[in-house]
Amino acid sequence: MKPLNRLPGFRDFYPDPIPTSEEGRMEERQHIFRVWRQVARRYGFREYDGPPLETLELYKAKSGDEIIHQLYHFSDKGGRDIALRPEMTPTLARMVASHQRNYKKPMKWFSIPQLFRYERQQKGRLREHFQLNADIVGESDHAADAELIAFLIDVLRALGLSSEDFVIRLSSRDAWQLFFDARCDDQGNAYEFFQIVDKLERETPEISTARFAKIGIDFEEVSALIKAAEPTPVLRKMLEQLEDRGLGDYVKIDYGVIRGLAYYTGVVFEAFDREGVFRAIAGGGRYDHLIKLISKDKVDLPALGFGMGDVVLGDMLRAKGLFPKATDGADIYFQILDEALRSSSLGTIQKLRDQGVSVEWPMTPSSPKKQFKSAHDLGARYAVSIADSDAFLLRDLQTRETSTITLDQLFTMF
Amino acid sequence: MKPLNRLPGFRDFYPDPIPTSEEGRMEERQHIFRVWRQVARRYGFREYDGPPLETLELYKAKSGDEIIHQLYHFSDKGGRDIALRPEMTPTLARMVASHQRNYKKPMKWFSIPQLFRYERQQKGRLREHFQLNADIVGESDHAADAELIAFLIDVLRALGLSSEDFVIRLSSRDAWQLFFDARCDDQGNAYEFFQIVDKLERETPEISTARFAKIGIDFEEVSALIKAAEPTPVLRKMLEQLEDRGLGDYVKIDYGVIRGLAYYTGVVFEAFDREGVFRAIAGGGRYDHLIKLISKDKVDLPALGFGMGDVVLGDMLRAKGLFPKATDGADIYFQILDEALRSSSLGTIQKLRDQGVSVEWPMTPSSPKKQFKSAHDLGARYAVSIADSDAFLLRDLQTRETSTITLDQLFTMF
Repeated sequence: MKPLNRLPGFRDFYPDPIPTSEEGRMEERQHIFRVWRQVARRYGFREYDGPPLETLELYKAKSGDEIIHQLYHFSDKGGRDIALRPEMTPTLARMVASHQRNYKKPMKWFSIPQLFRYERQQKGRLREHFQLNADIVGESDHAADAELIAFLIDVLRALGLSSEDFVIRLSSRDAWQLFFDARCDDQGNAYEFFQIVDKLERETPEISTARFAKIGIDFEEVSALIKAAEPTPVLRKMLEQLEDRGLGDYVKIDYGVIRGLAYYTGVVFEAFDREGVFRAIAGGGRYDHLIKLISKDKVDLPALGFGMGDVVLGDMLRAKGLFPKATDGADIYFQILDEALRSSSLGTIQKLRDQGVSVEWPMTPSSPKKQFKSAHDLGARYAVSIADSDAFLLRDLQTRETSTITLDQLFTMF
Repeated sequence: MKPLNRLPGFRDFYPDPIPTSEEGRMEERQHIFRVWRQVARRYGFREYDGPPLETLELYKAKSGDEIIHQLYHFSDKGGRDIALRPEMTPTLARMVASHQRNYKKPMKWFSIPQLFRYERQQKGRLREHFQLNADIVGESDHAADAELIAFLIDVLRALGLSSEDFVIRLSSRDAWQLFFDARCDDQGNAYEFFQIVDKLERETPEISTARFAKIGIDFEEVSALIKAAEPTPVLRKMLEQLEDRGLGDYVKIDYGVIRGLAYYTGVVFEAFDREGVFRAIAGGGRYDHLIKLISKDKVDLPALGFGMGDVVLGDMLRAKGLFPKATDGADIYFQILDEALRSSSLGTIQKLRDQGVSVEWPMTPSSPKKQFKSAHDLGARYAVSIADSDAFLLRDLQTRETSTITLDQLFTMF
């Protein structure tokens, strides 16, 4: 019979040693999550979470009907149209709209949701990923934009990446909106304009020129804006604050970035590896009208945020050898070399674990040789066994040194 | 317009201070997860995870068609029948079957999945919860059962619960199977028999008597077996090992527990609060044939495990006041009392954060009074500001003591 497999586009996460490089490695995921949370704490970002299922309406409200083609959505048994969350911002906006009165502004919140997109399966393309979502709500000053980007930079630095590895491309929706307004009267074309700019780097100049021409835009002028890379007043102030922090080397003005989605309003940005090997590591920007839209006019608060997925990031850290090599093994492998001592060994094992020590042991009788092998296989730091009623034999499995110690002495080692 | 709400039966998790007691508190969830992971490490359980979506077939293989009524399931755009995972064991069995050759036995694995059930909405009944799943695969000896139950006990102890708060009711499918075999020839009735025993405590004696009679079982004999509470040889050995560990007070033999699901094969158990106020805190048992079933005969390994949900556990910890009162605030609120010092303040804030210190600061100009209020609101331990080019003014916000220190002195405080 055919064994049951997981769905295509999804990952299993295995403990070390991972069976094949095609499987997810849980230790890598834990390492990334741990660093995300550590740096979030330094910046005062507080963790939240919402449900992985939401009403389909929540996503339609933000992105219109077209989003449906990229969603896992279905009707539940109660006849509700529901969807697996494809992004976190609508959930955040919904939660903020419900209870923002309870929190001082600005709110600095983060979450690590698993997100789902049903796209046609491409090689290596996943249908789920985890994403660090960090948002600042209730602050319209550019200092919030600089704070958010500093956080993004410090997350990548804490993972071992330097300014030689990545750069944040800073851009401005405002700059592009001004450019558009000066050349085109029909606001109905603005979204199309942003889309063409968004795809510039993946499209031939001929096709872009033709698409711009259709809405009365001259590609030469677009290229000139990008080439000049002249910061807007807001971007200039942000750059100053990032330089004050010593983070100037991690950012550059680049109007080639615009972010495809309709709802961005001010500064937008994406993080890329300098070598251009990978897709964007992270992206985000300001979305000052979205909470009003999602809350159906109940709450109006300025906001900005970014998302950083675990897949591109993981590929990059792996390529640069920045993941921890191996997980920690047990602190102690407790040997039972005489079956008459099994009961008292269990008592000691319990005492050690009560102190927070990680202890492995042979559940069934086995030879001393086999027990040493198990200790090594489990990556144990020490092998310990009962010597006599008060003393224990301790063997350091790295130095191979052996000594006799009391239980109290054993406790003080951890 | 009506604001967009979350789906019924799902939780949002808010940072402190939680807005209402009806919302999930993220700090409680983090506390539970942290303790689960800490104790898992002591016992050498290694974390894994699978996808929240699986093929519907995976659950049918284990539990038959009836499970479908309790599942979120639907057809995806590729025509696959898929389901949101209602439990973790089938995913574990699938993963073990795929790659067990890569791992030494016994495998001690755990996971903290979010699980989904579509049941008719009852008051306070959720459609999702998080669950600690711990399993031992590849060890048929009773020592594994004792190890698993010791782990369960220590998880609850680490959360602050004692033997006065909870007890593990230990039972045996084997004992019930022997009882049944001695009285009934038709194995087709065994599942019905287990179901009646499982519901004894929630059913009137009359109804149970009638249902037993239909399959030729005398209720009196059932009651006698439960009353005698005579441990099987395996249970007796497990009790000895738990007593060796000093955990005898946490368990009792109780054949009133049988676990409804069909696939258990040996020892089964449930954890309950002593006062009988809450539903079961955790439950599990041995399922030696399930991996063979799920892997379609590819892999045959003995296994056992338990699940502990976050909802009943959370209710109990809350009722007993065992959750940490408040989250940690910022280490430092960095005041900017002179706007001319904003740039240099940002430089210092960055240096502090680079050292892992949690720092909040005023993003926009505000009065000293307002800044002290923000420091208090954010639960900051210290307020710090620039005194002169080399010195900082430090105010302990608990003792209100003030001192002047250098940056190096400030670093050494954290």
